[in-house]
Amino acid sequence: MDLIAKLAEILGPDHVLTGADAARFGREWTGHYRWTPLAVVRPAHTAEVAAVLRLAHLTGTKVVPVAGNTGLNGGTYAEGALMLSLARLNKVREINVQARTVVAEAGVVLETLHDLAGGHGLAFPLTFGSKGSAMVGGFLSTNAGGSNVVRYGSARALCLGLEVVLADGRIWHGLTGLHKDNTGYDLRDLVIGAEGTLGIITAAVLRLTPAPTAYATALVGLETLADALALLNAIQAATGGAVEAFEFMPERYMDRLASARPGLACPFPPAPVNLLVEIASTTPTDTGAAIDPVSRLEALLGAALAAGRIQDAVIAQSTAQRSKLWEMRESAAEITFTTPDIVDCDIALPLDRLETFLVRMTPRLAALDPEAEELVIGHLGDGNLHYTAYPSRSDPALGAAIRAAVTEEAVALGGSFSAEHGVGISKRATMAAHKDPVALEMMAAIKTALDPKGILNPGKVLP
Amino acid sequence: MDLIAKLAEILGPDHVLTGADAARFGREWTGHYRWTPLAVVRPAHTAEVAAVLRLAHLTGTKVVPVAGNTGLNGGTYAEGALMLSLARLNKVREINVQARTVVAEAGVVLETLHDLAGGHGLAFPLTFGSKGSAMVGGFLSTNAGGSNVVRYGSARALCLGLEVVLADGRIWHGLTGLHKDNTGYDLRDLVIGAEGTLGIITAAVLRLTPAPTAYATALVGLETLADALALLNAIQAATGGAVEAFEFMPERYMDRLASARPGLACPFPPAPVNLLVEIASTTPTDTGAAIDPVSRLEALLGAALAAGRIQDAVIAQSTAQRSKLWEMRESAAEITFTTPDIVDCDIALPLDRLETFLVRMTPRLAALDPEAEELVIGHLGDGNLHYTAYPSRSDPALGAAIRAAVTEEAVALGGSFSAEHGVGISKRATMAAHKDPVALEMMAAIKTALDPKGILNPGKVLP
Repeated sequence: MDLIAKLAEILGPDHVLTGADAARFGREWTGHYRWTPLAVVRPAHTAEVAAVLRLAHLTGTKVVPVAGNTGLNGGTYAEGALMLSLARLNKVREINVQARTVVAEAGVVLETLHDLAGGHGLAFPLTFGSKGSAMVGGFLSTNAGGSNVVRYGSARALCLGLEVVLADGRIWHGLTGLHKDNTGYDLRDLVIGAEGTLGIITAAVLRLTPAPTAYATALVGLETLADALALLNAIQAATGGAVEAFEFMPERYMDRLASARPGLACPFPPAPVNLLVEIASTTPTDTGAAIDPVSRLEALLGAALAAGRIQDAVIAQSTAQRSKLWEMRESAAEITFTTPDIVDCDIALPLDRLETFLVRMTPRLAALDPEAEELVIGHLGDGNLHYTAYPSRSDPALGAAIRAAVTEEAVALGGSFSAEHGVGISKRATMAAHKDPVALEMMAAIKTALDPKGILNPGKVLP
Repeated sequence: MDLIAKLAEILGPDHVLTGADAARFGREWTGHYRWTPLAVVRPAHTAEVAAVLRLAHLTGTKVVPVAGNTGLNGGTYAEGALMLSLARLNKVREINVQARTVVAEAGVVLETLHDLAGGHGLAFPLTFGSKGSAMVGGFLSTNAGGSNVVRYGSARALCLGLEVVLADGRIWHGLTGLHKDNTGYDLRDLVIGAEGTLGIITAAVLRLTPAPTAYATALVGLETLADALALLNAIQAATGGAVEAFEFMPERYMDRLASARPGLACPFPPAPVNLLVEIASTTPTDTGAAIDPVSRLEALLGAALAAGRIQDAVIAQSTAQRSKLWEMRESAAEITFTTPDIVDCDIALPLDRLETFLVRMTPRLAALDPEAEELVIGHLGDGNLHYTAYPSRSDPALGAAIRAAVTEEAVALGGSFSAEHGVGISKRATMAAHKDPVALEMMAAIKTALDPKGILNPGKVLP
């Protein structure tokens, strides 16, 4: 009996897709990566995932897991491989309002978690653009970030326990809801962020947080990124860490935004550094102890203005004004992805070295291509910059040289060439060139130990 | 040339201790574990640690790392093994006030970090009883907890990067200060908590936080642990997560405390559940936006009293009163360790299952020993209970049966048999009996991959 027939026996023929049905799975959403999978299987629960992997292990079949398929680095590239879709593992197994945990399967959509938590006066705070498609298995396997990381951490910080199917079909039952557990190695954090190369996450225990009851959102103009970091530190101290977003938009971004979307023009003459700053209060509004975050942020920014530490500031006075400020930031994709020849980089730096990076990078770009432009936007609170260069001509070698220069400058400052988007296949060569060689040897040894036949998401992450 | 001579050549003869000099290292501080090491080496920097391990790897010599030696589970037991003391790696390599990070070597004492951060208006918030002796390498290798975990997390949550010497002397240079870095597997969190079995931590990048400028500390009496969890959730929401400590002292503890230390008697008739609750504000006191945490906690507890959700509460009105409330909690060791025959357990449970555990455990203890007493104290915000039983007779079999019962009841409720104290040698049998078998297989595979000769802290953690 051939592999497809055996899979159909395990899952039922409706859940083993081949030909045109499988071909629909053969691309990343941007269209940048395309492939032809061997077949696509759609197990409904953990035991079926395990059965598929036992068979794959026996037969040496390569398996590429896919959840919401919202990645950007070819992490689900599966030429000739069996794709394993987690979309049917879509149950929320349990929500515990008092302990503030939820047990969700790998195919649960991020926005579903938002809605579920919101219905109980709680929040699942991880959020990013593709929240309507991204799923638990994907955002954990890539340790996704987004715009609330400064307060709540990346996906890893929001996960307490995992259920994982290993390469040979064994199931690790690690669905703990504990906040302290020192019983051996931290396997959870090893599998999170491994992009499906060490095991397939089938369910997770996730942390819920109190839902914000009020926001204060401001646009602030400053001279330098050093001033911006000082402002972040001051607001964090004053509010006890209530900063939910601290997003950087330089003058050039504001200029492009004003041209493309005049209704979203900066309400003051754009400064060199413009920040979207949001703080939130979780104080229930029916208690006498409630503190209005808008008054708080007004007092803090007023003092900073008076002291000359910032140049300009406007605070949203309504939900509509808040939405408009966020639209300025969330137009980034539209403002950035204007031509196919852009070089878009996702880097992170120590918080105090962002300015040095930009000061070094600007002339370096000019030396490679005097007419190239650059555009930066970033999650400043995490040291995460999305740096984009616009070469003056369509030339793959030039694009590669620019990308290499960005990586070199970031790494030279103690930075990372992959802050929140992961490695996939697109950054494997960069891993080989810039990751600490001993770290790479450790990763390779762990990969071999847990997946000796190399069948799990082959060709990803490791050089 | 024999091993000792070669070590002396690497480190100088003054830093290779044998005989009586080495024998001083042959015990845990409690005296419960004792051993005779082969020798003790005291390297001064990372390259010397690497040289020692290269030699150990070549010769198959077992190496047990030791930092402050403040553990409780035999993690530094080293019968016939070479002990590697990290005490001379005691430099703070860098402090970055703006980025709020510090790079500290493995031998830096925890209290030194407290003082250093405090000198810059910052805090390194990890703290526990042995802070005057515990060192970076030890508190990271054991993922230590303590009384501030509810706000700042365990040691793991406070570490951004590591420098680690592997079993064969290779050095992994991972001293990143980044908040986002998705470049491959999370090796950092794998080595943290591995108790020196996967590599020897020689330095770390640690996070600093704003120093609290004001505290509010209360003693609160309630009926049930469910009420306590509801109160924790309410205070967290109202204060945006400003709870620094939420410590549980049951009525029996208060009674024992009143007998042993009449000056520390509970200021109200002890309730079934008594809590030490502390919140902190980091708002600089010279800003108009400062919010007095005492007023805040008074309002919250006043509302809870009026609504009948708590029975009693007193709030410290001075530093002296705050110290006295903390002394009540910190007398736990004195109140608990009264006879050598106690069975002391360090367990964690999901936050909403603490009461169920106690309801099940009390009759279970009575069935094993009708005259046994029990005493509980705990970090309630983390679900961490220190459960101690006092058998009516000195009988190792009875002690073992009680410990097994505690473990069984905790595990049956989704709990952990080692919350913050680690495994060492004392809980290896419990690991074999209660840890998920696939998790154990994964750990063994990783251990073999990174330390194929099994020379690093042999006989610890893994069954």
